[in-house]
Amino acid sequence: MAASYDRAITVFSPDGHLFQVEYAIEAVKRGSSVVGVRAADMLVVGVERRATAKLQDPRTIRKIVKVDAHLTLAFAGLTADARVLIDKARLEAQSYRLTCEDAPSLEYMARFIARTQQKYTQRGGMRPFGVSCMLAGFGTDGQPQLYQTDPAGTHSAWKANAIGGKSSKNMREFLEKNYPTEGGLDEAAAVKLCIKTLLEVVDSGAKNMEICLIRRDTPVETMSDTDMAAVVAQIEAEAEEAKKASAGSSMETS
Amino acid sequence: MAASYDRAITVFSPDGHLFQVEYAIEAVKRGSSVVGVRAADMLVVGVERRATAKLQDPRTIRKIVKVDAHLTLAFAGLTADARVLIDKARLEAQSYRLTCEDAPSLEYMARFIARTQQKYTQRGGMRPFGVSCMLAGFGTDGQPQLYQTDPAGTHSAWKANAIGGKSSKNMREFLEKNYPTEGGLDEAAAVKLCIKTLLEVVDSGAKNMEICLIRRDTPVETMSDTDMAAVVAQIEAEAEEAKKASAGSSMETS
Amino acid sequence: MAASYDRAITVFSPDGHLFQVEYAIEAVKRGSSVVGVRAADMLVVGVERRATAKLQDPRTIRKIVKVDAHLTLAFAGLTADARVLIDKARLEAQSYRLTCEDAPSLEYMARFIARTQQKYTQRGGMRPFGVSCMLAGFGTDGQPQLYQTDPAGTHSAWKANAIGGKSSKNMREFLEKNYPTEGGLDEAAAVKLCIKTLLEVVDSGAKNMEICLIRRDTPVETMSDTDMAAVVAQIEAEAEEAKKASAGSSMETS
Amino acid sequence: MAASYDRAITVFSPDGHLFQVEYAIEAVKRGSSVVGVRAADMLVVGVERRATAKLQDPRTIRKIVKVDAHLTLAFAGLTADARVLIDKARLEAQSYRLTCEDAPSLEYMARFIARTQQKYTQRGGMRPFGVSCMLAGFGTDGQPQLYQTDPAGTHSAWKANAIGGKSSKNMREFLEKNYPTEGGLDEAAAVKLCIKTLLEVVDSGAKNMEICLIRRDTPVETMSDTDMAAVVAQIEAEAEEAKKASAGSSMETS
Amino acid sequence: MAASYDRAITVFSPDGHLFQVEYAIEAVKRGSSVVGVRAADMLVVGVERRATAKLQDPRTIRKIVKVDAHLTLAFAGLTADARVLIDKARLEAQSYRLTCEDAPSLEYMARFIARTQQKYTQRGGMRPFGVSCMLAGFGTDGQPQLYQTDPAGTHSAWKANAIGGKSSKNMREFLEKNYPTEGGLDEAAAVKLCIKTLLEVVDSGAKNMEICLIRRDTPVETMSDTDMAAVVAQIEAEAEEAKKASAGSSMETS
Amino acid sequence: MAASYDRAITVFSPDGHLFQVEYAIEAVKRGSSVVGVRAADMLVVGVERRATAKLQDPRTIRKIVKVDAHLTLAFAGLTADARVLIDKARLEAQSYRLTCEDAPSLEYMARFIARTQQKYTQRGGMRPFGVSCMLAGFGTDGQPQLYQTDPAGTHSAWKANAIGGKSSKNMREFLEKNYPTEGGLDEAAAVKLCIKTLLEVVDSGAKNMEICLIRRDTPVETMSDTDMAAVVAQIEAEAEEAKKASAGSSMETS
Amino acid sequence: MAASYDRAITVFSPDGHLFQVEYAIEAVKRGSSVVGVRAADMLVVGVERRATAKLQDPRTIRKIVKVDAHLTLAFAGLTADARVLIDKARLEAQSYRLTCEDAPSLEYMARFIARTQQKYTQRGGMRPFGVSCMLAGFGTDGQPQLYQTDPAGTHSAWKANAIGGKSSKNMREFLEKNYPTEGGLDEAAAVKLCIKTLLEVVDSGAKNMEICLIRRDTPVETMSDTDMAAVVAQIEAEAEEAKKASAGSSMETS
Repeated sequence: MAASYDRAITVFSPDGHLFQVEYAIEAVKRGSSVVGVRAADMLVVGVERRATAKLQDPRTIRKIVKVDAHLTLAFAGLTADARVLIDKARLEAQSYRLTCEDAPSLEYMARFIARTQQKYTQRGGMRPFGVSCMLAGFGTDGQPQLYQTDPAGTHSAWKANAIGGKSSKNMREFLEKNYPTEGGLDEAAAVKLCIKTLLEVVDSGAKNMEICLIRRDTPVETMSDTDMAAVVAQIEAEAEEAKKASAGSSMETS
Repeated sequence: MAASYDRAITVFSPDGHLFQVEYAIEAVKRGSSVVGVRAADMLVVGVERRATAKLQDPRTIRKIVKVDAHLTLAFAGLTADARVLIDKARLEAQSYRLTCEDAPSLEYMARFIARTQQKYTQRGGMRPFGVSCMLAGFGTDGQPQLYQTDPAGTHSAWKANAIGGKSSKNMREFLEKNYPTEGGLDEAAAVKLCIKTLLEVVDSGAKNMEICLIRRDTPVETMSDTDMAAVVAQIEAEAEEAKKASAGSSMETS
Repeated sequence: MAASYDRAITVFSPDGHLFQVEYAIEAVKRGSSVVGVRAADMLVVGVERRATAKLQDPRTIRKIVKVDAHLTLAFAGLTADARVLIDKARLEAQSYRLTCEDAPSLEYMARFIARTQQKYTQRGGMRPFGVSCMLAGFGTDGQPQLYQTDPAGTHSAWKANAIGGKSSKNMREFLEKNYPTEGGLDEAAAVKLCIKTLLEVVDSGAKNMEICLIRRDTPVETMSDTDMAAVVAQIEAEAEEAKKASAGSSMETS
Repeated sequence: MAASYDRAITVFSPDGHLFQVEYAIEAVKRGSSVVGVRAADMLVVGVERRATAKLQDPRTIRKIVKVDAHLTLAFAGLTADARVLIDKARLEAQSYRLTCEDAPSLEYMARFIARTQQKYTQRGGMRPFGVSCMLAGFGTDGQPQLYQTDPAGTHSAWKANAIGGKSSKNMREFLEKNYPTEGGLDEAAAVKLCIKTLLEVVDSGAKNMEICLIRRDTPVETMSDTDMAAVVAQIEAEAEEAKKASAGSSMETS
Repeated sequence: MAASYDRAITVFSPDGHLFQVEYAIEAVKRGSSVVGVRAADMLVVGVERRATAKLQDPRTIRKIVKVDAHLTLAFAGLTADARVLIDKARLEAQSYRLTCEDAPSLEYMARFIARTQQKYTQRGGMRPFGVSCMLAGFGTDGQPQLYQTDPAGTHSAWKANAIGGKSSKNMREFLEKNYPTEGGLDEAAAVKLCIKTLLEVVDSGAKNMEICLIRRDTPVETMSDTDMAAVVAQIEAEAEEAKKASAGSSMETS
Repeated sequence: MAASYDRAITVFSPDGHLFQVEYAIEAVKRGSSVVGVRAADMLVVGVERRATAKLQDPRTIRKIVKVDAHLTLAFAGLTADARVLIDKARLEAQSYRLTCEDAPSLEYMARFIARTQQKYTQRGGMRPFGVSCMLAGFGTDGQPQLYQTDPAGTHSAWKANAIGGKSSKNMREFLEKNYPTEGGLDEAAAVKLCIKTLLEVVDSGAKNMEICLIRRDTPVETMSDTDMAAVVAQIEAEAEEAKKASAGSSMETS
Repeated sequence: MAASYDRAITVFSPDGHLFQVEYAIEAVKRGSSVVGVRAADMLVVGVERRATAKLQDPRTIRKIVKVDAHLTLAFAGLTADARVLIDKARLEAQSYRLTCEDAPSLEYMARFIARTQQKYTQRGGMRPFGVSCMLAGFGTDGQPQLYQTDPAGTHSAWKANAIGGKSSKNMREFLEKNYPTEGGLDEAAAVKLCIKTLLEVVDSGAKNMEICLIRRDTPVETMSDTDMAAVVAQIEAEAEEAKKASAGSSMETS
């Protein structure tokens, strides 16, 4: 059995699957969770800070990094793979700037990262990248944009999405239920939604999260622990309230 | 068993099959459906919008894209593979324009895409593209043309055709029964035939479809939901009518 | 078992067989039939039009194509492979014209196509072409010539021959029985022989055939359906006649 | 079974693991231990001197080496692999100095070493480096920095960490318990913590250790055996004291 | 079992065999027979015309071809392989003429062909040529020479030899018994010996043979069917005579 | 079973071993023994002359060779591999001299040989060198130096060491017991220790040994058989003496 | 089982063997025998003429060939491999002469041939040469020299040696017993020893041998059958004599 995947280049199985790509997606699921939420004029990206050793400098294992002036990237999956992919993206961005004397658009970079990932699924002598990326930035029209790439090399844009971890599907469903169908979100609501979604998988509250606020023409802001704790507290209060209300209403109806 | 396909380059089986190509065709069948219909002076291309997540920006996962000024491409199969193939096609089209100071003909581009796909079935160290393409545009004589390519690298021209999905064969048969043997179709009839064919696989009507109208010297028009809904309604009304008529006629004959 | 062919480069089996080549010949047998007949001063090439979908443009899946001004090629086997081989042949012909300021001879081109096919049977990292070719044209002496190539990369010249399909051997034997041992054929007789041979495998008569007439210094003529139908009718009439005659003579002798 | 890892390039297993990388990490565990501790204005790096043959020149099997003027590297794992990786790092540092007319930052070098290690996990025809590295030096802001890389190609910064050996996890936990959460360490405390941690795995005290003191703008100092013995003695004395105290206190409380 | 030869590069078996080479020799045995006989001042080369289809142009499947002005080559084994090898030899001969302004010697060309064949037995990613060659021509001293090469890449000179077919060993023994140990052969005797040897494997007499007469400074002559038939008749007459004589003598002795 | 190592590139086993390297070390163990001893101002290198055929010229199978003016190398393992490695070292030394206009240091050359050996353990399509080397020479400070490399590509310096043969570990322990911990050795003592160590594995005394004396600024001297025999005699006399003494002392004590 | 050697690159087995090299040595054992004997001022090289077909030109299958003006080479093993190796050696010799304006020394050429053979045992995608070589010539000091190379790529010098055939070990032992330990051999004695050794494996006496006499500044002389027969007769006479003498002496003693 082992023999079948351990020497493989990425090829089709009889029913049209690319197993190496699917196994790489498993590697992403083994990574920590990333949540991205697009507000009306900014973006919130949050990550689960899982298994950070007490003495480790959290800055060097950050899962949210700057790729170019206007492009913030969060990843789920193999850190070493992600760093290589990020370096390739940074190089491409710089090279684009030199050639075109302009910053590459967010979509251009999403497309570049996805194409790079796809290449590693079709040629022999390589394995796919064990990484999914969440890209946040602003379009040429100044609107906030949120892109995702996966190990297959697909990219797509989202209002809000979650990648990485065993529960990314649940988190995406949670986002779907709670993202307003009309009118979008203001910054506070986006932050709250992002944290609420992360709390689905993160046990110990604000301690194990990192939240970045990406606003136009402003350096990316990493939320302080205090601010995160405040939002968490508010969320918990509201949950308690809702429970009481529900208990009360159930009493009322009984 | 697993050992036999998981490490393979694409080679012949004893009865002359190329399994990697056939497995790639399975990947196309796992994709969503695409329908193309050639009218007298325009083309209609419709795709099934399957499994679009609620918060996903539908624009970035479009299965109908512009390859060159006069060439619209819809694909079925692996999105990441398709994007790479489309990028190759776009590059070839631009390079052709630079070299020949003219746009490449639709047939030239169909031939290029097919040749690229074939190459990935004959050389080692690669897997085939898990993609079939539907190409719509106008010939050098100004007539509408509809081409198809498949993972084997074959290309062919059609009056109307369906690719992708488990039911593409049924859809093709449906098109054969309903495409007029003489005289062709006007735009309205082509749109109706395209939508009717898609309704064979799409349950929830206009919501899960995307229809593009490709007219000469005009930007490609994506049909509005309202317009699609109207056509769907009309189709349903006619079906009801036909049922009644059939019931009536069966009563009459009894 | 599967393991033995699915990863193979083309190598010898213990009894001196090249299995990948033999499997590629199976792919040719899975293709449709091609018949070539050399008349005194022209050539007839006929192909079975198998499985053409009703809405498919027959021109784009033609199995008889022009390679160079004086070289018509019909193929049996994998269409995508054939197209790549034809493109290589076309490029070689053009390159020959540029270098030598003359058209390449038919034999030169047959040799080139065969050599290309052989190369894919001897080097690793490739599979053989799943294609046999029938080449029709005129020699440097102005005489009509008919060449064949196969997946092994052998080429040979024929008065008449059949390739492709499960019954190509039967068709060749039919040609051997009916080709005059002396004096050759005129155009009408060659057309009749070609169609008669194809009728051995084609059920529905002229509908599923395509016949090309290759004459010197004249564009290749594709026979009209009417003309084909007339020849088919004549063949059937003669067969009926022969049956009656045979019945009569058997009565006479009884 | 053997077949599954013995010919492998590094690919994903069905549950998203990269076995070759995990096996390389086993090779690191088979190596001797390395401990790094960051003090307020300097760094202490200690290694276990395991299995040094009596007649071997300890200088040539040193596990603590200088990579560049400001970069000290200690490694755990395969010595031959480490030397190659170190040579690559030295070359990169020199090349950086030539190109940029400045020393590369510690982070730049950590990133370079990690990227090099990652490359060997993703391409075919190579195996990963069986090495983890501890990098000690000073940042562009003059602050002491401690980096770690592993066979996967991940790099991260630490206040204190342990790599190599079967007990690296225990040693890390020991460091976490004993590193002050506030205020940092002075040089003496850092040395003591480093030696104390190594004593968790090293039986025969100072004899089998090597301790380097990395101070700004000063050549790296290797601690003398006498100095090490003194610290070990002090540690043992304190342990004895603590035991007595504990016995006393337990007596008192009883 | 199949697995052991089907993917192989040519390597040694435990008892020092090169199986791919031995299998290629089997491919030669599956080919038709070739006989070469050296007369005092000329050479006779005969081949079995096996399985020539009735409508096939015998010229294009000739197994006796001209490689250079003074070099005639007959081959046994895979036709497609032989043609490629012959093309390589022709190119080398032309290139030699250009460089050295002289024709290459027969031995030089035999050496070149053998070296080319050997190369395909030692490098990976290739299979051996499934071909043995018989080379006939004149040495620099004007004497007739007969060389043989085989799939291993060995070349050797002979007075007379047979290659190809299941009975090549028997034919060689026949030649050994009938080639005069002293004084050589004149042309008529050489032709007779060649045909007699071929008759050991060819059933239907002159019809299935092709005999070439290679004389100095004269174009190669292919024997006419009439001439061959005459020799066959003479041989049969002599055999009959011998039988009678033997019967007579046996009667006499009885 | 055989399948697991016979096709391998060098990769990690699940517990972090590199089997090809360990198998290469077995090849070294199958070779003959080499002993090196560093005296105060010179070096002694001795090898076991095993299995020298009676008619073989011992010079051409010497296991002690000159690599550069100041570098003597003795090897254990595969002779053919060693010669290639030595040629690479010689080339590097010459190239260094040309580029740097100075002799390479002994450490530089040890590092070069080790790096070359490591490269063959990490890349595909190669096997490790089946060789360990003992390098003797003088450092830039004029002090004698003794280096060792192994198939893994590790290099290290020693006061005295033994490589090759089944008993190299025992010989190293013998050296450890007999090398003075203080003050070093003079030339006579070093020669005696070297020969004594070799006698642990060599049965027939001086006949099967080769001893080289490496002194500064002097050509390497190969000890004559007579001189070796004298030392052996002395060693045996001393052993006899010791035995007697021990017997005497045991008698005395009894 | 077959799978283990049939696809192999040359790698180490667990006990340090290189199987492909050992299998190649088997191929040498399957070849015919070669004996070389060094006399005081000349050399004798003899080979077994095994299996020479009656009509084969013995010159073209000679196993003793001239590589350079002063270098005679005899080989055992695969003829095709040997020819390629010889061509490489000849090219090197010519190239050396062009570059250095001097003939390469015999040792240089032995080293070159051995290095070439080793290379084919260490790199992937190749198999070892199935050849051992005996090189005879004169050193720069004018003394006769005899070198041997084997498939592993080892070279060594000999007073006399035998390679090839199943009995090469016996022949070497025979040489050891009969080569004078003191004083060397004159030409007649060397010839006699060479033939006597070959007679150990060759049944039919002088007929199946080829003996070359290599003298300084003289073309190599191939011994005539008459001369060889004379030596064989003398050897047999002496053997008979010895038998009688032995019988006589045994009678005397009885």
